[in-house]
Amino acid sequence: MTPTADAGYRRIRLDLAYDGTDFAGWARQPGLRTVQGVVEEALTTVLRLAGTVRLTVAGRTDAGVHARRQVAHLDVPAAVWQALPGRSGRSPADALTHRLNGLLSRGTRPRGASDVVVLAASVAPKDFDARFAASWRRYTYRVADARAERNPLRRTHVLWHRAALDEQAMNVAAEALCGEHDFLAYCKPREGATTIRTLQHFAWRRSPEEGGVLVAQVRADAFCHAMVRSLVGACLAVGQGQRDVGWPSTVLAARRRDSAVQVAPAHGLTLEEVGYPSAEQLAQRVAAARNMRGPLP
Amino acid sequence: MTPTADAGYRRIRLDLAYDGTDFAGWARQPGLRTVQGVVEEALTTVLRLAGTVRLTVAGRTDAGVHARRQVAHLDVPAAVWQALPGRSGRSPADALTHRLNGLLSRGTRPRGASDVVVLAASVAPKDFDARFAASWRRYTYRVADARAERNPLRRTHVLWHRAALDEQAMNVAAEALCGEHDFLAYCKPREGATTIRTLQHFAWRRSPEEGGVLVAQVRADAFCHAMVRSLVGACLAVGQGQRDVGWPSTVLAARRRDSAVQVAPAHGLTLEEVGYPSAEQLAQRVAAARNMRGPLP
Repeated sequence: MTPTADAGYRRIRLDLAYDGTDFAGWARQPGLRTVQGVVEEALTTVLRLAGTVRLTVAGRTDAGVHARRQVAHLDVPAAVWQALPGRSGRSPADALTHRLNGLLSRGTRPRGASDVVVLAASVAPKDFDARFAASWRRYTYRVADARAERNPLRRTHVLWHRAALDEQAMNVAAEALCGEHDFLAYCKPREGATTIRTLQHFAWRRSPEEGGVLVAQVRADAFCHAMVRSLVGACLAVGQGQRDVGWPSTVLAARRRDSAVQVAPAHGLTLEEVGYPSAEQLAQRVAAARNMRGPLP
Repeated sequence: MTPTADAGYRRIRLDLAYDGTDFAGWARQPGLRTVQGVVEEALTTVLRLAGTVRLTVAGRTDAGVHARRQVAHLDVPAAVWQALPGRSGRSPADALTHRLNGLLSRGTRPRGASDVVVLAASVAPKDFDARFAASWRRYTYRVADARAERNPLRRTHVLWHRAALDEQAMNVAAEALCGEHDFLAYCKPREGATTIRTLQHFAWRRSPEEGGVLVAQVRADAFCHAMVRSLVGACLAVGQGQRDVGWPSTVLAARRRDSAVQVAPAHGLTLEEVGYPSAEQLAQRVAAARNMRGPLP
């Protein structure tokens, strides 16, 4: 995928939602069912391109992690794009969405529903990049502790926790982690990539609309691998009284992996939303992010 | 099961939640996985009774229908009840809840979660009857139409509908059905049983907290078989403009099954709550309900 769309191509943005339960994560892996694999296969069928379609994504979610609004992009020849509606009377974007969802929901149960949905397709500016143009990612993490309702209908995306958790202590711990820091202690680092991130927001709230389930809102410019689940794991230790509220900050300051930090289970985590700058600021944002976080993996 | 608990027995109330997706409904059936079958089996294991435990339930939900707070009862020998805590220090009710949930969540995915949960166990008055003492049942039905968000994480309990639905028209139609009527047109009748019911509340609302999903609240003293799903089916025909708002009332007044009424799919339906009178009024309520609705099936 070239940094900007070539002449004669449209850069297409896809907004996607998925239940991560039955996927081995976002990233394509041979022999495994992944979100990238399933969506790229549907795109190849609908677009009838000679080569394989390749998606670039905002957040490469791990196995079991869900998304309410993930963002990806791909380049489509302008002629193919224009021909998408056929005689349907739809716009190319609506025709693509409709046909992808038709393919993705084949043979699913309940009938017509599927565990991955294309929420929208749209033509993006040439220099839009789902990954490097993103200015922030927002995740939620849900925990039903001993004080919350256990709703079997929500069990695929809520961690059930035996203990009663002290959300005020968890909130104090979470707030102390916000700001620009080297999050090495909470990351599985990659060779040559920085672990400096700006944690813009991290707060816990007991949600009355969700039967008292504890919901963490976590927003940062970007996250390194396993970062949200490690931050959540540190807060859970505080919430159940195993550690004091200052401990997660002490771990952060030490700037090395601490085996006492448990990575929280994947299924409680959902990528909620990805933020992008205005069209005029896209190129600048892409250059800054590439410079800071290194080349594509 | 005797109408009131015998001397030497405790009448135990169980509050249950379940995801109906992988159950062939509430009622025990040979060779099929049913909620009643799974819970009775767990009760038999925990209580170590010679015979098989039998549950009486407030709402015999169909295959695929969910429950957020279903109610059932059973009789347990007082000595067995008192012995439940063992050395755990728990109350008998907490010990039963804890052990049942332990059994029900064995081998489930995500680990520790399960598709049926005992929310509470409690000692009920001798003349409590989960079925005949209930003064009302409240159900919800959820539809994501073309205007609503399609959230794959909620797909097991929300009907995805292609059309955009007119919720105001659906509301007018629903309100006109409220009151005491013979609901024969909306029931699969059983021999010798009345189809007169009081529909206390039936309203549609687009829920902003659920991404614009249409939620019907449906409350009645009791429902006959397939009644909620038939009422919902009639409203869907109005909402998509196939029928005018007066049609569901015309069907009701005709007092015979109308093949134009589609029974809406099971998976959008959830039993939310069952209401009971105060302890002093239980016996009176049971007598009235038995008299009106006939013997146990």
